[in-house]
Amino acid sequence: MCLPELAAFDLATLVARARDGDARAVGRLISLVENGSEHLREAMAALAAEPGHARVIGLTGSPGVGKSTTTAVLVAAFRANNQRVAVLAVDPSSPFSGGALLGDRVRMQDHATDSGVYIRSMASRGHLGGLAWSTPQALRVLDAAGFDVVLVETVGVGQAEVEVASLADTTLVLVAPGMGDGIQAAKAGILEIADVFVVNKADRDGADSTARDLRHMLSLAEGRRPEDWQPPIVKTVASRNEGVEDLMAALDKHQEWLVKSGRLDARRRVRAADEIEAIAVTALRTRIGDLRGGTLLDQLAGQVVAGELDPYTAADQLVADVTR
Amino acid sequence: MCLPELAAFDLATLVARARDGDARAVGRLISLVENGSEHLREAMAALAAEPGHARVIGLTGSPGVGKSTTTAVLVAAFRANNQRVAVLAVDPSSPFSGGALLGDRVRMQDHATDSGVYIRSMASRGHLGGLAWSTPQALRVLDAAGFDVVLVETVGVGQAEVEVASLADTTLVLVAPGMGDGIQAAKAGILEIADVFVVNKADRDGADSTARDLRHMLSLAEGRRPEDWQPPIVKTVASRNEGVEDLMAALDKHQEWLVKSGRLDARRRVRAADEIEAIAVTALRTRIGDLRGGTLLDQLAGQVVAGELDPYTAADQLVADVTR
Repeated sequence: MCLPELAAFDLATLVARARDGDARAVGRLISLVENGSEHLREAMAALAAEPGHARVIGLTGSPGVGKSTTTAVLVAAFRANNQRVAVLAVDPSSPFSGGALLGDRVRMQDHATDSGVYIRSMASRGHLGGLAWSTPQALRVLDAAGFDVVLVETVGVGQAEVEVASLADTTLVLVAPGMGDGIQAAKAGILEIADVFVVNKADRDGADSTARDLRHMLSLAEGRRPEDWQPPIVKTVASRNEGVEDLMAALDKHQEWLVKSGRLDARRRVRAADEIEAIAVTALRTRIGDLRGGTLLDQLAGQVVAGELDPYTAADQLVADVTR
Repeated sequence: MCLPELAAFDLATLVARARDGDARAVGRLISLVENGSEHLREAMAALAAEPGHARVIGLTGSPGVGKSTTTAVLVAAFRANNQRVAVLAVDPSSPFSGGALLGDRVRMQDHATDSGVYIRSMASRGHLGGLAWSTPQALRVLDAAGFDVVLVETVGVGQAEVEVASLADTTLVLVAPGMGDGIQAAKAGILEIADVFVVNKADRDGADSTARDLRHMLSLAEGRRPEDWQPPIVKTVASRNEGVEDLMAALDKHQEWLVKSGRLDARRRVRAADEIEAIAVTALRTRIGDLRGGTLLDQLAGQVVAGELDPYTAADQLVADVTR
């Protein structure tokens, strides 16, 4: 999408409309985030003044475990409670948004005409700061727009997916029987980020042993104290709407624990620290990038090519120049 | 792999052995890169002093176009010319190395016992600097180890893959008939990075129209001057060893052009600048990361959560603190 930036109406209007829940305004603000717009700073300042109350729920898991179906089922469940729901579908491996990620979510079409539901996909677009930079800012937009719940769905189980999912208040990790997800999960550090495990497609063979494997791995996790949250393992068959009540109950229980234990505030501070850090790193990267084509970096590169200088010593000189 | 770092022998010995082409020493140095070892700086300084002469060839393209087969065929062709060849297989989307990437390359087994061939996969491992940081340093190790040719193979066509492939002296972009790669290529900025296009599986229907589409898109590319390189389109059936001579001829022709036009030096300067920049950015990110858990970032995060401060203004204060 290549919109003329803010031609039709100005930023204050855009922010005001987003606050009123205007889907088009929300969409344009997220596009500003995605494109790293120069107006973003102003937009974020306007949005920061009145934070909302959105509950952020992350969903992650390997392709094929049923993330889209589970997301659709959760949307329906929250809507039944009369809550406004936004879905942010994030694909860290793709430089493009839209397309496949939303194309195959047939069940999402049930919600397409519901004004209490907003669905948006987002990709890294090769922006300097990547998704660590853009996702918290997109969440800020959705929070300010007054959504009660934001579901952040990622496509895989890589490092980037784990990072994105861990921005949430509550992180769901989906596995399916017989996919060897257990070992995969342990590898990707998913055990640490999961607040609730969902064994989806639980009507298939091996669901019980998958749940048992997960329970065993959780029991081996080191450093867990009695007062810490114990991630429950919920079995669902999302495609048949089975287990959804259990899942909603697990989500509510975690939410209660977050509030009572003071962890909700702690998690939001960590999310804010992540956001600030990502913006600061991007600003410093931009400063360094601005040196491209300049004399110093070009000269250092020439010396490195000639073997007169090693790249670390060259980098030291660059850092000294930027932070001078 | 969790080796005790440099327990058995010291860095100088390791570098000396790598220079002699000892595959085990080369492997350990690349592991230092992959793990972001504290010894890396010292290793790179030792390696920088005597640059080698390796010709770096990048291969990229969508899954299923035959990158592994083409890589294997190129390895055989360079070996037939008595050149030592290293293959660096890079998977930007995976935090793990090894595994699937090398597991399915059956044809590579032809070269498994050939001491003139070194094969290594590398993943981002979630290291701060990512592959933009680690790939040039791994290339530096392979160059210093005296390889004549380094083939850098990436798994997909995303932004990260494009960046990695563009580190090469010569970049091959593989497409296959009927995969809609043309449009995909244009999207991912692959037209700009390709020095040679390979239409592999050219015995399939649609090979001619794929080549025609590519030629058409190249003709539309803006800003190309007569003295610029015109990327040739080579048809191959790598699985049957067809078209390999044409491909090798195209590679040699591009290499000659690089040398004659002075672009080889220019590309290597850009690669060195990328390397220096990535190391510098990582150093600055580490400085900011060191502030995690400290008072300033925690205090700023608290203000952002409370809506007292927007994240950009908070980031400004963080940057001011780091560059003070």
